Amino acid sequence: MRDEKTDLPGAELAAFAAGIRYKDIPADVVARAVDLFVDWVGSALAGKGVRPVEILSGFATSMGPAHGPCEILIDRSSSSPLFAALVNGASSHVAEQDDVHNGSVFHPAAVVFPAALALAQAHRASGREFIAAIVAGYEVGIRVGEFLGRSHYKIFHTTGTAGTIAAAAASARLLDLTPEGMLHAFGSAGTQAAGLWEFLRDGADSKPLHTGKAAANGLMAACLAKDGFTGAKQILEGRQGVAAGMSSDADPAKLTDRLGTRWALAETSFKFHASCRHTHPAADALLKAMRENSLAMADITSVTAHVHQGAIDVLGPVVSPASVHQAKFSMGTTLGLIAAFGRAGMNEFDQAYARQDVAAFRDCVRMELDAEIDEAYPARWIGKVMVETVDGQRFEARVDEPKGDPGNTLSRDEIETKVRGLAAFSGAVSPPELDELLLQLWAIGRRDAIGTLLPAREEAGAGMAIA
Amino acid sequence: MRDEKTDLPGAELAAFAAGIRYKDIPADVVARAVDLFVDWVGSALAGKGVRPVEILSGFATSMGPAHGPCEILIDRSSSSPLFAALVNGASSHVAEQDDVHNGSVFHPAAVVFPAALALAQAHRASGREFIAAIVAGYEVGIRVGEFLGRSHYKIFHTTGTAGTIAAAAASARLLDLTPEGMLHAFGSAGTQAAGLWEFLRDGADSKPLHTGKAAANGLMAACLAKDGFTGAKQILEGRQGVAAGMSSDADPAKLTDRLGTRWALAETSFKFHASCRHTHPAADALLKAMRENSLAMADITSVTAHVHQGAIDVLGPVVSPASVHQAKFSMGTTLGLIAAFGRAGMNEFDQAYARQDVAAFRDCVRMELDAEIDEAYPARWIGKVMVETVDGQRFEARVDEPKGDPGNTLSRDEIETKVRGLAAFSGAVSPPELDELLLQLWAIGRRDAIGTLLPAREEAGAGMAIA
Repeated sequence: MRDEKTDLPGAELAAFAAGIRYKDIPADVVARAVDLFVDWVGSALAGKGVRPVEILSGFATSMGPAHGPCEILIDRSSSSPLFAALVNGASSHVAEQDDVHNGSVFHPAAVVFPAALALAQAHRASGREFIAAIVAGYEVGIRVGEFLGRSHYKIFHTTGTAGTIAAAAASARLLDLTPEGMLHAFGSAGTQAAGLWEFLRDGADSKPLHTGKAAANGLMAACLAKDGFTGAKQILEGRQGVAAGMSSDADPAKLTDRLGTRWALAETSFKFHASCRHTHPAADALLKAMRENSLAMADITSVTAHVHQGAIDVLGPVVSPASVHQAKFSMGTTLGLIAAFGRAGMNEFDQAYARQDVAAFRDCVRMELDAEIDEAYPARWIGKVMVETVDGQRFEARVDEPKGDPGNTLSRDEIETKVRGLAAFSGAVSPPELDELLLQLWAIGRRDAIGTLLPAREEAGAGMAIA
Repeated sequence: MRDEKTDLPGAELAAFAAGIRYKDIPADVVARAVDLFVDWVGSALAGKGVRPVEILSGFATSMGPAHGPCEILIDRSSSSPLFAALVNGASSHVAEQDDVHNGSVFHPAAVVFPAALALAQAHRASGREFIAAIVAGYEVGIRVGEFLGRSHYKIFHTTGTAGTIAAAAASARLLDLTPEGMLHAFGSAGTQAAGLWEFLRDGADSKPLHTGKAAANGLMAACLAKDGFTGAKQILEGRQGVAAGMSSDADPAKLTDRLGTRWALAETSFKFHASCRHTHPAADALLKAMRENSLAMADITSVTAHVHQGAIDVLGPVVSPASVHQAKFSMGTTLGLIAAFGRAGMNEFDQAYARQDVAAFRDCVRMELDAEIDEAYPARWIGKVMVETVDGQRFEARVDEPKGDPGNTLSRDEIETKVRGLAAFSGAVSPPELDELLLQLWAIGRRDAIGTLLPAREEAGAGMAIA
């Protein structure tokens, strides 16, 4: 007789997620969860004023209740958990500053925190319960992303698909569902899992829609399961499940990889540049090449960025970016900003993505598939560039761990600096408010009950932007 | 230079849908649209009291506004368009009595009507505008289902996936979007397209979730597009679009098949038996075999149902049904009810699906792939059975067009009888109310403004069922 655990890896993962308790989570994982939370709030605030986010916020206003227990961070309006998850999920992904897990090529924060925060506020959960829910979301989502594999990511935005299950896991843990209930939540989440890369070709608005809907749909799956709504028990690995439909290299063993001993949350990287993560290794390598060889932008005639296939799949369609958001998926633009400013942050993208020198630099950048990098990916994201200069010289540079990766992570000071920059960029929070907010955020784990994070604003402009 | 139409079939389909006007729709197509509407209302009422539908209704109550311009038919509560679409979409599919289009293996009513009705009520659209929107939804959804092909349907519930785009098309037409806006709505809908068959193995509650979410997500996509939210322009046929991710035999020519000359809506079949449509050809053939040869249930020792592969894919996982809903996906149970009662309606399933003689009959039924049937499918759904009797005789019967198909359709009297049966079964509407309702429904096309269909009930029990 075969071991049930081996036969039903999805059920084993659900049982693990349902059983996560704060007291069992190692202290360094708890600390990293708080770092990721603070980092996420910065991203969520950064979405204020961004057109697709404001449209989604208007939709929430027109379809949802006028008020509710849950906070929409961009404008401090309130709503039910579903709409808070939707809008915070969208706003926290649109600036491309939210975290990423390398091995799963998955952005956990933008789907896990919106769902868990909304339900924690609605149920007045404690900081410890909140953190346990976050950990459940990360551990599940990352393993589902790894399970779905590289074939999945070629067509599907894993943060939309695996993200729905991650949000369901966090929500179900917050609602204290049984292992069976958790599995039903997986079932209803998995059968809603969606998100395609096709939008990249047009620079369309789908990316924040994917995270907002993943957060909202996952939350919905958990709420339904709490009320007895059933889902497929093998939604991930079954013959007509997520992997059967959307992957050709899925590995069920990834679903249960070292549960309880490997804490995948702690492997999550912070984003340093304000662009798609696939550009970061080459960006860091270019920075290194320029610093080591004292090169200026004008010295450079061409850059070859050696990359993994996934970078070509995602960034390849973006030839001539027509918006700030699309520019974040242009390797050439990102390297152009690095060359011009030594950094590719929110302000650089906003103000200079279409500048003539940056556009000219962009057209001198090409990506080339590199066997070593592709083999190391997605466990490691190696950056290599070859730079040619006006005087015919060639320089190479290599970065083994881009800034923000676990071995090259951000300090709490660096995270604060990043959050301050994001909040200042969007104007969602004033500097004095931010001082108070940051104090609160770092102490989130010690709260007796998660309430609103920001002081209410009279008649905060929910939906005003789209009249 | 190639014709843009040929290059972008999705855009051509969107332009067609955006351009549909009531005056251009042939009268017989309008009449059939009204037939389908009346039939759909019956299905929507039939969902009252069904556990997963009531759970979704409770979710709508807890997450949505307390009141709104849109009607939730099962309990006459009101909400915003999003939640009315969600609950009416779920309730109209759960009884397995809603319509089906053979060639696309797609249930249009359960996704198109909920979205269009909700927006028509919210915007007080005229009956003509409502019908134009319905036609847009059917024409788009059916072609998208045909485009996605048989490989898609093996894993994906086409009504969930194509249904999201169908609901978006109906919604966008109702909102009078431009061709460009329609295409953006397709983009946001397609990137949310989801729905997996895996739930069948457990008899889980996902099927009405698929229709409810397809209706709600499609409506959302159109509302967002109206406000300027952009989507991928080749979400259906693009290299990282719906077909690339979820089909291996997609045919883009199907998307634009005879636009404006072929009215696919009129090809839609009504369901006669209260079970999965894949059981109907064999059910009609068994009925014929029993009538022609004066056989009673007790005479029969075995039945071989000759079927297409899709029937085996969908019905195969259901071996021993554990619920009324799962029994509707059991070929053996359906044929057992036919044998016992001469019909397989709501009452027969509800009261007798687990009865000993029906269960015993079920175990004597087997499905066998039939080359002729499989080749004709999905354009034609042929039924063939071979019956063996206790005295060793064998009888065969064949039905070329099951009851409810366009060539063997239901009259308006038969539709009324069906709706009365569904309403009586669930108790959602009293017989006198139903008389008045039916008069109104048949006249829907002549309304100046679509309002609520049913008289309000004081404190209708929204969410009561799940406390």
